[in-house]
Amino acid sequence: MPGFFMSLIVTSQLMQFPGELALTSGAVLGDYRLAYETYGTLNADKSNAVLVCHALNASHHVAGSYAGQPKSEGWWDNMIGPGKSVDTQRFFVIGINNPGSCFGSTGPMDVNPATGEVYGADFPVLTVEDWVNAQALLLDRLGITRLAAVMGGSLGGMQALSWTLQYPERVRHAIVVASAPNLSAENIAFNEVARRAIATDPDFHGGNYYRHGVVPQRGLRIARMIGHITYLSDDVMNAKFGRELREAVDGVVRSDYHYSTQDVEFQIESYLRYQGDKFSSYFDANTYLLITRALDYFDPARTHGGDLTQALAVTRAKFLLVSFSTDWRFAPARSRETVHALLENRRDVSYAEIDAPHGHDAFLLDDPRYMSVVRSYFDGIAKELS
Amino acid sequence: MPGFFMSLIVTSQLMQFPGELALTSGAVLGDYRLAYETYGTLNADKSNAVLVCHALNASHHVAGSYAGQPKSEGWWDNMIGPGKSVDTQRFFVIGINNPGSCFGSTGPMDVNPATGEVYGADFPVLTVEDWVNAQALLLDRLGITRLAAVMGGSLGGMQALSWTLQYPERVRHAIVVASAPNLSAENIAFNEVARRAIATDPDFHGGNYYRHGVVPQRGLRIARMIGHITYLSDDVMNAKFGRELREAVDGVVRSDYHYSTQDVEFQIESYLRYQGDKFSSYFDANTYLLITRALDYFDPARTHGGDLTQALAVTRAKFLLVSFSTDWRFAPARSRETVHALLENRRDVSYAEIDAPHGHDAFLLDDPRYMSVVRSYFDGIAKELS
Repeated sequence: MPGFFMSLIVTSQLMQFPGELALTSGAVLGDYRLAYETYGTLNADKSNAVLVCHALNASHHVAGSYAGQPKSEGWWDNMIGPGKSVDTQRFFVIGINNPGSCFGSTGPMDVNPATGEVYGADFPVLTVEDWVNAQALLLDRLGITRLAAVMGGSLGGMQALSWTLQYPERVRHAIVVASAPNLSAENIAFNEVARRAIATDPDFHGGNYYRHGVVPQRGLRIARMIGHITYLSDDVMNAKFGRELREAVDGVVRSDYHYSTQDVEFQIESYLRYQGDKFSSYFDANTYLLITRALDYFDPARTHGGDLTQALAVTRAKFLLVSFSTDWRFAPARSRETVHALLENRRDVSYAEIDAPHGHDAFLLDDPRYMSVVRSYFDGIAKELS
Repeated sequence: MPGFFMSLIVTSQLMQFPGELALTSGAVLGDYRLAYETYGTLNADKSNAVLVCHALNASHHVAGSYAGQPKSEGWWDNMIGPGKSVDTQRFFVIGINNPGSCFGSTGPMDVNPATGEVYGADFPVLTVEDWVNAQALLLDRLGITRLAAVMGGSLGGMQALSWTLQYPERVRHAIVVASAPNLSAENIAFNEVARRAIATDPDFHGGNYYRHGVVPQRGLRIARMIGHITYLSDDVMNAKFGRELREAVDGVVRSDYHYSTQDVEFQIESYLRYQGDKFSSYFDANTYLLITRALDYFDPARTHGGDLTQALAVTRAKFLLVSFSTDWRFAPARSRETVHALLENRRDVSYAEIDAPHGHDAFLLDDPRYMSVVRSYFDGIAKELS
């Protein structure tokens, strides 16, 4: 009954935190709000909560659709919902938007209560650890002491891993998908190019563009185009676009070049420009800078002399890690580093390496093997709880 | 005697072509000049000429140094010179700068003879085939009917391959290093992001920035940073930079983050910014657009329904192809495509896949196995000639 799967209607909620969130940097975030959504029902002993952490371009809107907006499915709606791999008829699933985001939680476009001015460039730099602390405070308010599971893909997987380090007693299971224990030099390099594209856009105004009534759209466009290349595999790009020329307006595939450096010649160019334009029309540039920086900084082994095994010794959770064969942003080898470090600590780890052609994007796509691995794992969690 | 190797003093030359060069696009390039250099002596029967074709960021200055400028070594000086792999005591080596470049041959900063205005955006779009035609006309003027060899790396390798298709009877040997028979979708994608960074820089002025007294330096910087990432392997980046923080001014390695989205935190960021700044201070933006477009367009199989074997049937040369294991810009698999297509045509092909950690950049570096493969191959050519 596919109609059944479509029926989850959800609403966004906001929770205000009047206190100050102490940040890793030494700064504080004062009087902030978090946007979140919940799906399913918290059981009597509050043991069935699953927290979902989001990646760069995502939000607390993880599953379901908003009333009257059938195309507003959450970003992991193929994974989470009634009867799905993470079954909201059994689990109480929470999606949280991280502070610094532009999708509902307090971010750089908000007014800094300390100055009465829009934050802009003054928004404090946040780390993965800070986000996890903010998420923990929201769980406190919901009365949830211990999570059945925390899960996330990519940057969301880093948050899930960090939960098991910061709050080892509050996490039964961590599901870490298409992630890494830190960024490689190449990962940082791509982030840096994206940040420079934004920061050198004349409309950036040092991050205070709001008060000039502009946004650094050119820079954001470039940032997103770079990002998109790293989300896809070379294979899937060749399969999807190859060297195809852009279709003419009438749908006829051209066979000859324009001989122009400015016109779109190839389908891949058209695709990237479209993605860049779309993204730059809704995403906030300061948020992009903040989130890529949080990615750069994440490195739990850093305070242990680079020894990941030592860093993961505090974990108490059980783990499922999933990686995808053609993901070159967070390659399977990066997930295996975490798996090995956990095994050296004799932790309970399941690991699936899915042979999928879609690169990093695979973690958002509907691969049946991937979905069934997660389903089986959550079946196991449900059995533990019952 | 290392001192001996340092002794090649060279001078740049210019040759004027008063006619019109007919271009693939249908346009013409009128009254143009080519910059070139030669090393060694052309023998009596003019059979020992080796043409070297340059890649994106290079010129006709292939070997030796300019008088009084000991640090001005040519870009392939480790490969070419007296006693080197390509021995200028035996071969007459010619480096040519392609039209459209910013290093001496007629380019977008020159005056268009048809209008009396600087070309800027009006400079015609050139293809690899156009460059080869221009190179052939220069050889005509030097009285060279047939090359002992044509050689090049990356985009230069595409020109070498194209020589064997456009002028099969004029090439004895083609040495094609770290190249590909066309760009993949991902290659085009990176070029397109670089082009968009340049073209959306407000200082670009549609390509006519010269008359505004500015250059789109921000865009060029981003373009070069992207390029640099694709020239290096993930491995060499991790080995060279890893997650090292930038050293403080006093040379002490910092151990803590700044928590800033704007400051340089990591060595890799510092390196990329430096490379971007340096490049954008001397390279012309229109040239960057033109050269990346020539890369995109190159695809000899295109007019043969995508059949590379059929496309290469006209070749008469013998071939040496070299690729490098960690080159992900033009991976070994791309060189193998060419090797297979040549073998299917029963051509004489040598192929070396060098296990080197340096990515695409390896073709410019001093790997002893690479140098000795090329040396042996040229020893063979010398024997054929004697």
